[in-house]
Amino acid sequence: MQISARNSFKGTVKSMTPGAVNTEVVIEVAPGLEITAVITKTSAEGLGVSVGGEVYAVVKASDVMVAVD
Amino acid sequence: MQISARNSFKGTVKSMTPGAVNTEVVIEVAPGLEITAVITKTSAEGLGVSVGGEVYAVVKASDVMVAVD
Amino acid sequence: MQISARNSFKGTVKSMTPGAVNTEVVIEVAPGLEITAVITKTSAEGLGVSVGGEVYAVVKASDVMVAVD
Amino acid sequence: MQISARNSFKGTVKSMTPGAVNTEVVIEVAPGLEITAVITKTSAEGLGVSVGGEVYAVVKASDVMVAVD
Amino acid sequence: MQISARNSFKGTVKSMTPGAVNTEVVIEVAPGLEITAVITKTSAEGLGVSVGGEVYAVVKASDVMVAVD
Amino acid sequence: MQISARNSFKGTVKSMTPGAVNTEVVIEVAPGLEITAVITKTSAEGLGVSVGGEVYAVVKASDVMVAVD
Repeated sequence: MQISARNSFKGTVKSMTPGAVNTEVVIEVAPGLEITAVITKTSAEGLGVSVGGEVYAVVKASDVMVAVD
Repeated sequence: MQISARNSFKGTVKSMTPGAVNTEVVIEVAPGLEITAVITKTSAEGLGVSVGGEVYAVVKASDVMVAVD
Repeated sequence: MQISARNSFKGTVKSMTPGAVNTEVVIEVAPGLEITAVITKTSAEGLGVSVGGEVYAVVKASDVMVAVD
Repeated sequence: MQISARNSFKGTVKSMTPGAVNTEVVIEVAPGLEITAVITKTSAEGLGVSVGGEVYAVVKASDVMVAVD
Repeated sequence: MQISARNSFKGTVKSMTPGAVNTEVVIEVAPGLEITAVITKTSAEGLGVSVGGEVYAVVKASDVMVAVD
Repeated sequence: MQISARNSFKGTVKSMTPGAVNTEVVIEVAPGLEITAVITKTSAEGLGVSVGGEVYAVVKASDVMVAVD
């Protein structure tokens, strides 16, 4: 399946913090570059996401902001 | 100002596509790794975003999804 | 690729309205039941989305609200 | 009150999973077709959402992605 | 209809900028305090939003970030 | 750092509800006018957000909806 979300970054799961509803997933997409996702615990379990596993972080372009110094 | 959005990636603006309301901004955050943002044209102009400039792509963790092959 | 977004609905593209940056895509997911998506024009073209084509409407659970009468 | 969110689907609450902050609400909008929402626990309680109740799942068009096989 | 979105601010439409797909709506919610929304042009027209009209700006809590100086 | 998010409201933190993953933060931005944010617990702690503290509620324009009576 190909999705319209413009941003997809391959990485390795560094840590997972499960709550009752959501799970926080920290993904290293390059050395020293991490992306944090919050997804439902049901999704994390359904996809078999686990520390050390290879995943993609996916973001819709309309959810990306731009900042300047 | 520090913001709660967990994900912030420094990069260089590669291209900008303005519309009547929104502007698409493509940011290279690492060699070969681009993030696309859609922000309002007013914001892009107000921040002085321009091709070649240094910016940050910022994403709230709850807007990041996880995918697996 | 499997994605953490919990909601995925198969349907047929009924109409597309392109702008300079975004394209509005109306998808019929059941008789009389339509979902409207706004994605970048680049994504719509890159995925080959066209009227009459079969697509999925995909939504992250944290973007779904609940209303009552 | 009428809202600009383009997508509104009437359905029946199938299950609720409360956490400390958020509650996951699974809504059946057609036979075999479910939408999952994550809203604050305070909202779920304030609206009186309960299993078996009739609700609407509401989604802003800019939060809908499109995928193809 | 009552919605789970936690944040709703009554105000007056100060300006509207229509594009092909989206319309930017600037709403004054208190003297000198404005909220900018980007909604589909179809929604803006369907709701009859016009400059000077009374509307509500509505935001889901998971879309609100926190910043500190 | 200046960010493209169009909406930023200064206020005082009224209450915080921490969960395992997320923390709900209620911010009073004007007398009787509150904004509720849900951010990760790690962000809330990292920014030093505490009840009584001065913060900004920040919202991207594409996450704001418009409603009419």
